[in-house]
Amino acid sequence: MERPPPIFGITIPPGYRDWKLISVAHEEGKLNDLRAILGNDTAIKTYREGKLPFPDGTIIARIAWSYVPSEENNKVFGRAQSFVPGPAPDWYLQFMVKDSKKYAATGGWGFAQFNKDGKPADEAMHKTCFPCHEPAKARDFVFTYYAP
Amino acid sequence: MERPPPIFGITIPPGYRDWKLISVAHEEGKLNDLRAILGNDTAIKTYREGKLPFPDGTIIARIAWSYVPSEENNKVFGRAQSFVPGPAPDWYLQFMVKDSKKYAATGGWGFAQFNKDGKPADEAMHKTCFPCHEPAKARDFVFTYYAP
Repeated sequence: MERPPPIFGITIPPGYRDWKLISVAHEEGKLNDLRAILGNDTAIKTYREGKLPFPDGTIIARIAWSYVPSEENNKVFGRAQSFVPGPAPDWYLQFMVKDSKKYAATGGWGFAQFNKDGKPADEAMHKTCFPCHEPAKARDFVFTYYAP
Repeated sequence: MERPPPIFGITIPPGYRDWKLISVAHEEGKLNDLRAILGNDTAIKTYREGKLPFPDGTIIARIAWSYVPSEENNKVFGRAQSFVPGPAPDWYLQFMVKDSKKYAATGGWGFAQFNKDGKPADEAMHKTCFPCHEPAKARDFVFTYYAP
């Protein structure tokens, strides 16, 4: 039987890969990934209106891919400069789900991480989510800005 | 009067910012940007089915932002590692539009670049699009792979 997702009980939202784009980022260091941040319609509407906090029902998805050079692109540019998504890393998928009652103890947000095999990360990993997001309290615990 | 878009006559497709995500990339060098590649429904369907060539009506959008460090994120990670979208560069928006008859001379694709002020780039710039995309002929002149 599949291991149930720990702590927040969040499963992968159907259709998340079709959601609209919030922004993109590159993380160096141990992560060394390229990432896209997508939002469901509630998330996108809130971002575009610029009114915090995010309402209940907001879901933000973060997809990460390993950061790899593109030899094909570099040939065209005539130099090594192009970096594109490679295979999924262990921290492939993350979600933030807003439910101000259910997740009152963690700023109204539930957090979920799914590894590249589709299985949720363990409980210890999920305990690190909220402490890491706390510094972004002034922006309702969300780091990502909307990229116009 | 607004300058008409040169050569291919392509205007900015309404609603492109709502399109689904194809992939993301980072270009170093003179570009030094973070970019997202979005596709209209025809583009996404073709990518997901993996069947080339892209049919007429396909539009692929490329949005670029300058590549800037995030001091807020770096504080949380405890090191300089996080790069996020900054202001739009001059090559802010590009589109590829498939119309195999209209654009027969350029692989069936029309190309458009809009600068950060929303104005189309000049004719000389548009003449560089197809020669640069020619090496990707085996993939119907499109460099970007779909990022799952």
